[in-house]
Amino acid sequence: MHIDVIPCVNEARTEIWGGKTVLVIDVLRATTCIVTALENGAASVYPADTVASARNGKRSGDLLGGERYGKRIQGFDLGNSPLEYTPQIVSGRRVILTTTNGTRAVRKARKAAWVIAACLRNARAAANAAYGQKRDIVILCAGVQDTFSFEDGLCAGMIIEEIFQRKKTEDEVYLNDFALAMHSLYLFHRHRLEEAINGCSGGRKLKKMGFGEDVRFCAEPNVSGVVPVLHQGEMIVYTDHFRESGP
Amino acid sequence: MHIDVIPCVNEARTEIWGGKTVLVIDVLRATTCIVTALENGAASVYPADTVASARNGKRSGDLLGGERYGKRIQGFDLGNSPLEYTPQIVSGRRVILTTTNGTRAVRKARKAAWVIAACLRNARAAANAAYGQKRDIVILCAGVQDTFSFEDGLCAGMIIEEIFQRKKTEDEVYLNDFALAMHSLYLFHRHRLEEAINGCSGGRKLKKMGFGEDVRFCAEPNVSGVVPVLHQGEMIVYTDHFRESGP
Repeated sequence: MHIDVIPCVNEARTEIWGGKTVLVIDVLRATTCIVTALENGAASVYPADTVASARNGKRSGDLLGGERYGKRIQGFDLGNSPLEYTPQIVSGRRVILTTTNGTRAVRKARKAAWVIAACLRNARAAANAAYGQKRDIVILCAGVQDTFSFEDGLCAGMIIEEIFQRKKTEDEVYLNDFALAMHSLYLFHRHRLEEAINGCSGGRKLKKMGFGEDVRFCAEPNVSGVVPVLHQGEMIVYTDHFRESGP
Repeated sequence: MHIDVIPCVNEARTEIWGGKTVLVIDVLRATTCIVTALENGAASVYPADTVASARNGKRSGDLLGGERYGKRIQGFDLGNSPLEYTPQIVSGRRVILTTTNGTRAVRKARKAAWVIAACLRNARAAANAAYGQKRDIVILCAGVQDTFSFEDGLCAGMIIEEIFQRKKTEDEVYLNDFALAMHSLYLFHRHRLEEAINGCSGGRKLKKMGFGEDVRFCAEPNVSGVVPVLHQGEMIVYTDHFRESGP
């Protein structure tokens, strides 16, 4: 099993997805939102590329969520803070989500055999699902403004460590150099994830914008068992049904 | 002082160099060759983009060095193994060097205020020279085939740590997220550099090709005080003269 980590969306060449499982990571905050919305009972999360396509896709009962420049989009029901996606608000509803990096990364990966949304909160569950599919894995870090984001790399490294815990032989898993580096990055910071994220540019920026509580929430590892997978263009909860039949 | 690390040559946008110091890193093996050649008395190292331009640029007394696919180029005097660049061979000679990634990275950076060739062997000296210039720093990892190389990232992290040792206040140095990650990568592996490089793809490939001795040599940190700087298109030894007047 090969695991490649890609540092940011614009580094991803779509021709590499064929037959693979792609884990999309945008810790701050899109994939954390997707996991949280589904955990709190949303029917599905539809990743939209643009604000216009999000608005056009809205059907009765849908919620519009997302950000531009980190802030809620005018007229939208929800921003990009996972803390807004409470059971009271999202339960039973479809959420149409558009963010600058994360939802674009999900859409870019859509030709893969499997697309999973991962963040620190569901890292173990996502790693477990990806490992169980026995395909080569690409971990696509969304990044920001076409550059690498520290917290996405940290999460990629954590998922690799979780897969290492599951592998049966030493040479079962082969990492590309960037994956190897992200694995080391995680091992170095594993006992102080929140502190590490507070020191990187995304964490500092969100705190300055008043989203310190979001950073704390997004930095909590392995508290969710929800694995969002892409099915007919929408993120829904991975179940045993998929394990047999595919998305 | 800002320090940005760029993961590989094709990520470098040439417009970002203006007024900055660029440290180019290709641990395996181009910048290690440049440092070693100058340390062993070469008059200068001219980085050439192509095999043809290397051949055309050759004057009487020059040596042709470099590789394609890791192997010496037909008709060249030297390959890309630093161990070939002995005092007996290079002393007093100009070396024209062309390699797949490293010399291309040096040429790409040529519009910067300063261009320094760095590797693990001269990491401390290179960091010291760059810090002394009091400019923003870009560390350009050459990488391989337009992707990140682990050993170049490790060296970038080591140079950052050396600069951290020199900084006077906590907020004197600002790292971009990739620089932050490479610094952690170095701190994680600092006591086992050679072992780490033996495990990455470049190290494994060179060992398989019979260049295990090269890997060991390239992994030795801080054994050279030579700092190659680009001056009129050629790499020469940084001296106090430059400190005053610039390259």
